[in-house]
Amino acid sequence: MSAETPSVAAVDPWVARDVAVVWHGFTQMAAYPGNVPITVERAEGRELIDVRGNRYFDAISSLWVTTLGHRVPELDAAVIDQLGRVAHATLLGNGSRSVVEFAEALAAVVPVDDAHTVFASDGAVAIEQALKIAFQYWVNRGEPGHTGFLALGDGYHGDTVGALSVGDGGFGTSVFDPLRFPVLRTPGYADPDWAVKAIAAIAANAGTLAAMIIEPLVQGASGILVADPEDLAAVGRACREHGVLLICDEVATGFGRTGKLFASQWAGPDFRPDIICLGKGISGGYLPLSATVASRTVYEGFLGEDLGTATFYHGHSYGGNALACAVAMRHLQLIAEWKVLDHVVEVAAHLATRLDQLISGLSGVAAVRQCGLMVGIELAPPAGAERWGRRVCAGSVGRGVLLRPLGDVVVIMPPLTSTAEELDRVVDVLAESIRDVWAEDAQ
Amino acid sequence: MSAETPSVAAVDPWVARDVAVVWHGFTQMAAYPGNVPITVERAEGRELIDVRGNRYFDAISSLWVTTLGHRVPELDAAVIDQLGRVAHATLLGNGSRSVVEFAEALAAVVPVDDAHTVFASDGAVAIEQALKIAFQYWVNRGEPGHTGFLALGDGYHGDTVGALSVGDGGFGTSVFDPLRFPVLRTPGYADPDWAVKAIAAIAANAGTLAAMIIEPLVQGASGILVADPEDLAAVGRACREHGVLLICDEVATGFGRTGKLFASQWAGPDFRPDIICLGKGISGGYLPLSATVASRTVYEGFLGEDLGTATFYHGHSYGGNALACAVAMRHLQLIAEWKVLDHVVEVAAHLATRLDQLISGLSGVAAVRQCGLMVGIELAPPAGAERWGRRVCAGSVGRGVLLRPLGDVVVIMPPLTSTAEELDRVVDVLAESIRDVWAEDAQ
Repeated sequence: MSAETPSVAAVDPWVARDVAVVWHGFTQMAAYPGNVPITVERAEGRELIDVRGNRYFDAISSLWVTTLGHRVPELDAAVIDQLGRVAHATLLGNGSRSVVEFAEALAAVVPVDDAHTVFASDGAVAIEQALKIAFQYWVNRGEPGHTGFLALGDGYHGDTVGALSVGDGGFGTSVFDPLRFPVLRTPGYADPDWAVKAIAAIAANAGTLAAMIIEPLVQGASGILVADPEDLAAVGRACREHGVLLICDEVATGFGRTGKLFASQWAGPDFRPDIICLGKGISGGYLPLSATVASRTVYEGFLGEDLGTATFYHGHSYGGNALACAVAMRHLQLIAEWKVLDHVVEVAAHLATRLDQLISGLSGVAAVRQCGLMVGIELAPPAGAERWGRRVCAGSVGRGVLLRPLGDVVVIMPPLTSTAEELDRVVDVLAESIRDVWAEDAQ
Repeated sequence: MSAETPSVAAVDPWVARDVAVVWHGFTQMAAYPGNVPITVERAEGRELIDVRGNRYFDAISSLWVTTLGHRVPELDAAVIDQLGRVAHATLLGNGSRSVVEFAEALAAVVPVDDAHTVFASDGAVAIEQALKIAFQYWVNRGEPGHTGFLALGDGYHGDTVGALSVGDGGFGTSVFDPLRFPVLRTPGYADPDWAVKAIAAIAANAGTLAAMIIEPLVQGASGILVADPEDLAAVGRACREHGVLLICDEVATGFGRTGKLFASQWAGPDFRPDIICLGKGISGGYLPLSATVASRTVYEGFLGEDLGTATFYHGHSYGGNALACAVAMRHLQLIAEWKVLDHVVEVAAHLATRLDQLISGLSGVAAVRQCGLMVGIELAPPAGAERWGRRVCAGSVGRGVLLRPLGDVVVIMPPLTSTAEELDRVVDVLAESIRDVWAEDAQ
């Protein structure tokens, strides 16, 4: 090992073991050891504890999935109880009790008419299922000309080939252009006229579109870009009027993140997507689970004779995992029992005030965007400054608050049960970190 | 409800609840109640127990995932132990101890040189990751002309758009042709000259191929079509000689199903795929987990500067779930401790004898194909007979053995720990069911 190359093992033996065998997603592995990652061993409440015993407030909810916190006794009990019954039984051709119970609970709260749910495990697969269902729906109806998808600029829907196709550029997407199918695209939420432009595209292309796919209210991965609920409602009406199916990707926004159970609900009671995609928070951040929830109209388009062509020939081995559904069921109950939505609205307002007081005016901050407990702080690095998002977050991690940037946007995505005091700490630490990085580059 | 329509609720109230909210994969929901599905509530060992208390030997391993059986005390303990630490911590930019430990254990046994693993949760996503990695590998090397994939006829690799693209037809795939990217295809294992033809295609197209993808030894979803290990070895050599990456899809065959830990190992020690995709049995059938395992050469093609274009910008929120990795780790230990591979070889030989004695000669049976504990029994229905696979399996379920057909191929995919006596019962019940259906149609 040359003198220029720092010994990874000297830095942290767990990181050395990690880089020897694990390939982390969305991570440049050559830079991984130098970015001083933490290796999580355990957790308590909303704190992660690494292999050395250091504690970090989980301000990214283990990548936007943790809702009530880690090691929630009620959720642990739900997993253990289901373990005493069965861990997994296939849904392909047969049923599984804990899945039926969770699907019933989900149908009762999701803003989709007479919901039927196709389960999977990765969020991107919930999107793939939605795209395939929308596509085949028109074939089954005998109107095969509806082969297109309308998607928004800055949209992100996951990284399998179908999900990547409807997503916009960025994140190295263009490398895979030869594999992606073409999509009709209108501007995203960064454009104040996005809805007008989307509605025009819906009207002009209704005869060839299978569906429009949208992240309702918040484009998350693009840096927490927020839409006006009335614009969302108008787009929903346009889809309905012109007979274009509306797919709402609530993988990031679902399960209370925005202060309502689903972000779609901010657009009013008449906003009823044909398909909603769920993931992340669905299991409280415990287990891989995703779901594609379809309306009765869509579902009925697939009814036909046994083994016939109308069938949706799609399904994953672990779709409807009993353990994941059991924890998801208990999670949904706890959101209601603990009045989590009220809490989110309350602490989100508190957080907004603190961000306004302590972050918005800082040198090096261009904008603060927020919807519920989704926050994007767009940094404005001085000319020539590099890796600001990375450096600001590293400063926060060093102070015991785990953050991860999206480029030069710092995302705050705390557990939904976070207290006002915890959020104050996140904001204080972030402000210090931004000031530090600014001072470094000002020297 | 008309007189013609049987009351679902009268048949089984759980099925009525199920069809009201769940959309089952690969299942015609209009026919679901009539096909007398079971609703699993719990399990013991290798038996599933439905909501009414009926017991079924799980001869499909809950769709090819269960290895050691259900409710294995050691696996339950691994989940509970990890629950006491942390259920999930993201791998995007940080580490997770149980993931590092499992990845180390996996690297020690997988036939890939200096393995680095990208984790996900759905098996199809392991394929998507492999395709994207192979594709970007050439771009990163500055040889972007390698954009094609070679895949086999009768191949099945999952049902997301990328996985569906490399898979062959069947299962309603053609509906989605406008979304699939084009693939170079040579015949599958049904053609005795498949290897010669594949090798010719590799040689002729090496300059434009990113990779070849193959189900090593067994094409499962096409009805358990089995290849000669020497042919597999020859194809591996051709890929290596011509510089075409080899992706082995071991989602179905991995973790002991064929009698070796990985089916690739039947092709000898020199057969070293560049990428192996894993799923199903990886977690013993407990939790959603999948993995794309890449060789050092492939992995190093992605090293570069932080936030640079060489990075693999792909990663799922639940990739590297701590609970799933903890159970997968214990599972791998138990396979060794219990000498599961020896047991598979032993009972597979016993099963082969019984199939030969009791099934191969039956009227209505065209062929019996087997590799380890993967069996496909191709039925030969009399002219005009319909839904034979469905009816034969229904007869078996009625006798307490859960089977599910692939068209007119009955698949036997029992847990790896199945005893000779249990396999005898499966064969006896299947023979009775085939005789019954034959007799019905002969009348």
